[in-house]
Amino acid sequence: MKLPISIIATGKALPSQRVLSTDLDAQLGLKAGSVEKKSGLLWRHFADNTTSQSQLAAAALHDACAHHDIALDSIDLLICASAIPEQALPYTASAIIAASGLKAGLPAFDINASCVSFVTALFQATALLQTGLYRRIAIVSAEIASRGLNWQDHESSLIFGDGAAAVIVEQGDGRAACIAYRLETHPQGRDLCEIRAGGTHRNPRMGLDTSDHYFRMQGKPVFKLASQLMPSFMQCLFAELDFKPQNIDVVVPHQASHLAMQHIKSRLGLSSEQVIDIYATHGNQVAASIPTALHEAFRTGRARKGQTMMLIGTAAGFSIAGMVLTL
Amino acid sequence: MKLPISIIATGKALPSQRVLSTDLDAQLGLKAGSVEKKSGLLWRHFADNTTSQSQLAAAALHDACAHHDIALDSIDLLICASAIPEQALPYTASAIIAASGLKAGLPAFDINASCVSFVTALFQATALLQTGLYRRIAIVSAEIASRGLNWQDHESSLIFGDGAAAVIVEQGDGRAACIAYRLETHPQGRDLCEIRAGGTHRNPRMGLDTSDHYFRMQGKPVFKLASQLMPSFMQCLFAELDFKPQNIDVVVPHQASHLAMQHIKSRLGLSSEQVIDIYATHGNQVAASIPTALHEAFRTGRARKGQTMMLIGTAAGFSIAGMVLTL
Repeated sequence: MKLPISIIATGKALPSQRVLSTDLDAQLGLKAGSVEKKSGLLWRHFADNTTSQSQLAAAALHDACAHHDIALDSIDLLICASAIPEQALPYTASAIIAASGLKAGLPAFDINASCVSFVTALFQATALLQTGLYRRIAIVSAEIASRGLNWQDHESSLIFGDGAAAVIVEQGDGRAACIAYRLETHPQGRDLCEIRAGGTHRNPRMGLDTSDHYFRMQGKPVFKLASQLMPSFMQCLFAELDFKPQNIDVVVPHQASHLAMQHIKSRLGLSSEQVIDIYATHGNQVAASIPTALHEAFRTGRARKGQTMMLIGTAAGFSIAGMVLTL
Repeated sequence: MKLPISIIATGKALPSQRVLSTDLDAQLGLKAGSVEKKSGLLWRHFADNTTSQSQLAAAALHDACAHHDIALDSIDLLICASAIPEQALPYTASAIIAASGLKAGLPAFDINASCVSFVTALFQATALLQTGLYRRIAIVSAEIASRGLNWQDHESSLIFGDGAAAVIVEQGDGRAACIAYRLETHPQGRDLCEIRAGGTHRNPRMGLDTSDHYFRMQGKPVFKLASQLMPSFMQCLFAELDFKPQNIDVVVPHQASHLAMQHIKSRLGLSSEQVIDIYATHGNQVAASIPTALHEAFRTGRARKGQTMMLIGTAAGFSIAGMVLTL
């Protein structure tokens, strides 16, 4: 596979409240240091109640456009790639058009593959660019995980952070390309990470309680399933490439958890220099994690033209997605 | 534009409860004949509480596979194209894999552009098929609108029906193709059709009441906006075609309402023979309307190889989508 795609701009946004792990120790009545020890986080950002997901998305898109001197009006298509929507109807991308000042009439839709929504959307964008219908596509992932956390459950609540990231792509001159892509969904892991409300399953007609609005996670079984499935996934992803994961210049993993970040390094034999790890200061930002880490890779100069990059993540679903790019 | 895509199978599913408009008259304490007069519906189907969206989706997919002698295992990718998810996390396509018996590990994700999700997904599938990564793609739209209706509000509750449809596509031999496609999102109409719960906007942290779970619609402003935007939309959709909407063999509109169905015929100068109208016996099935009508067009023999077909619809967002195909 060699499908031309060039990342021409990236941006990110964090909400204003920086919440230290020591702040959470105090709020949750835990011994000082407990939250950092459990979560591996120094801090994460949380949105206050005046901030919407689409505002965060707009801020990330504005950052991308401003930094790379791109006119908002030059964007041909907007894809929102978030795991959780702003509301059940209509889809979030329409709210992002309004919040960002993108032109009315712009084509826009949402893609959802939970935490790997961005990788999935990036491949859709790659395919769409080949049709010639769109020239410049913006993909935005925005999450306010903090509104769906159950603070009684420390396993599922301490690791998350809010935020958004935007990535703008074009077909480019053919040198930059997607050279491998793979997505797998394993529904046997579907109930290991979930929010039961939000659709037709749990609602006033079907029965609903407050806990249905909150994220539930069975961390150990998720980790076990990921460990089982990852070797064959990686083998398939690299089947047609003439190099190995260890040879990738920049690896952008989903920032799932402290343990997951350590695991991906040791399992794939990657050095800390290769792996973009922003977990300790961002937390797991759900679908916004991968594009935020991608943004950091570019903005800090660690990702450069001509290099190889791998995006890789596991997600509620249970899903695994990976993409290998020449930048 | 000429992007090869061939529709090789369609299927549909309706839940078991057929609810006559006269049944609703009685349930809502209205004069006999009122609901039919207001809604233009003879009946619609409603799912009981033991039926899930993914089960309906699976039934539609099984119908498509059985009727066209297609093995489930031959499907390379599943796209769920529904407006409302089964739950906030994870995405609905993973539940459909489990409910339908599709193989674990299949790539799957959701696309959401509210009522025009199917048209949007069909164009994504078209683009994906050109990459060569997938050979056979199933798109499934499943909706249980009845669980989100406010029966105190007759304008927004009487016109809906539940159901699902599945469409399976391949690249084909190049004769069948997508020859025009357009999607527009106009966020100034975003609050005219909405369900405010389900995401980060209205939830236990932000405030939530029962009405937030129900569909709200401002029918007249939606209709006015659609009427304003449709002429230029149609002009753009047909800009590169050497024929007019009146020359299309089969028109598959979103079955939005009785008035909308009449309007599309008169506005575009279409005959009843050209337009697939299943509204009176299905209702507005949200994103499942267009693929269900598409299915009826094929299953009844009204759509045949070599003909031209147009899919067209407006949606919460506010969005308009259209596609012209050679079958």
